[in-house]
Amino acid sequence: MGLDTDPTLLPKHLAQKPNAVFSFNKAIIDATKEYCVSYKLNTAFYEAQGIAGWEALQQTINYIPATHFTIADAKRGDIGNTSHQYAKTFFEVYNFDAVTVAPYMGEDSIRPFLEYENKWTIVLGLTSNKGSNDFQQLTVTGNDTPGTLLFEKVLTKVCTWASEDNLMFVVGATHATALTHIRSLVPNHFLLVPGVGSQGGSLQQVSQYGLNRQAGLLVNASRAIIYAGNGEDFAEKAGEVAAGYANEMQQYLPPN
Amino acid sequence: MGLDTDPTLLPKHLAQKPNAVFSFNKAIIDATKEYCVSYKLNTAFYEAQGIAGWEALQQTINYIPATHFTIADAKRGDIGNTSHQYAKTFFEVYNFDAVTVAPYMGEDSIRPFLEYENKWTIVLGLTSNKGSNDFQQLTVTGNDTPGTLLFEKVLTKVCTWASEDNLMFVVGATHATALTHIRSLVPNHFLLVPGVGSQGGSLQQVSQYGLNRQAGLLVNASRAIIYAGNGEDFAEKAGEVAAGYANEMQQYLPPN
Repeated sequence: MGLDTDPTLLPKHLAQKPNAVFSFNKAIIDATKEYCVSYKLNTAFYEAQGIAGWEALQQTINYIPATHFTIADAKRGDIGNTSHQYAKTFFEVYNFDAVTVAPYMGEDSIRPFLEYENKWTIVLGLTSNKGSNDFQQLTVTGNDTPGTLLFEKVLTKVCTWASEDNLMFVVGATHATALTHIRSLVPNHFLLVPGVGSQGGSLQQVSQYGLNRQAGLLVNASRAIIYAGNGEDFAEKAGEVAAGYANEMQQYLPPN
Repeated sequence: MGLDTDPTLLPKHLAQKPNAVFSFNKAIIDATKEYCVSYKLNTAFYEAQGIAGWEALQQTINYIPATHFTIADAKRGDIGNTSHQYAKTFFEVYNFDAVTVAPYMGEDSIRPFLEYENKWTIVLGLTSNKGSNDFQQLTVTGNDTPGTLLFEKVLTKVCTWASEDNLMFVVGATHATALTHIRSLVPNHFLLVPGVGSQGGSLQQVSQYGLNRQAGLLVNASRAIIYAGNGEDFAEKAGEVAAGYANEMQQYLPPN
């Protein structure tokens, strides 16, 4: 469940109240927690509200039940000295379980996140947006299989820095058919799959091509759930859509 | 001037005082403003202090004289819908003149920043850290010149999305000799060059290979200046080091 809460899209009865973003998130969490295993907060939506946004993020994180896995979708990455500060931010200050990280700056930009015990680093592989064509799908040369694409090189190289117990990759649901090949490169890693719902990705296809024996998928939907309704029953509507995804996903899971 | 202020590295007489980070920055700005044209705040150091850190960032931005160009070194980037939120954060909420952006997610992740009038987008090209070898220097194939490296493709492609009036690139000072070739690819764009000082980059070499007729360089030093002293005279020491860089740079500038 993506809690990418945009204050300009809140139901009218909430929008003018103090602390509206947290009130909204609280109601959404109450209504959806039995249908999801994780909450992902895209930090951009909170940062854009200035300091009040960080306060809402902090309150939201504190409210999420300990049973649920928390992801800071922050896409950070900097030189090693600075990435340490980002790792501290999300793993210590806000106590998220996982954070998304951009790979462009290489090993020393990612390693400070990997050094935290019992925390997960989720590296961008193939993202869900149109711009993923611009660089991620360029063909790279070297000692790799001919025809290797940049995002494939990212997957295989970053895999050598960590294990499937602390590293995941982002693969957008809009590239569902690419998941078969991606699964051959990273058979055992969990994949965080955004792009189901408003971005048009198919849960059925993502499951068909992306599941492994441990499931291995964290499929995220955000706007399609949190903005399912905009009246006083917004949370109930969100719960219904979340339940719909959960029930659909259930059909695709491998038998125990 | 990089204001990458780490609260654990403050002079002892300041460290225990309330609002120590802003007090430090204020003194450093007073002591260095006549020797620099710009202040760059790496957001990681502020984020890692939680909400108090964002308050210190806001106070610092408000304190920087209007004569000086302000850069949020934030290295953000997300799908278009979300990058809009980041652009709003740094250009509207905190009113920076410029923000650094990571290119991995492609055009729609960068365009929301470019759409702001009278603001600058600074895209990562070849960064100063060791990890820049991992992906940025991979050879890519396609319709490009044989042997084109990923960061070169980033420079030439991103150039087609904006002009030299609202777009710069990050090129680390640790790759000074690469600047000759980079200048042939982007002859007129300003380059933000971090890595002088603690990271070992040479101001002389950066200037020799990177200057163009309009100067075209924003050379950044942070730790070497702000931690030049750690006693009560820390700001004076910082001013001396900043003056040293400014005087040295003056020798390399082309005659008017």
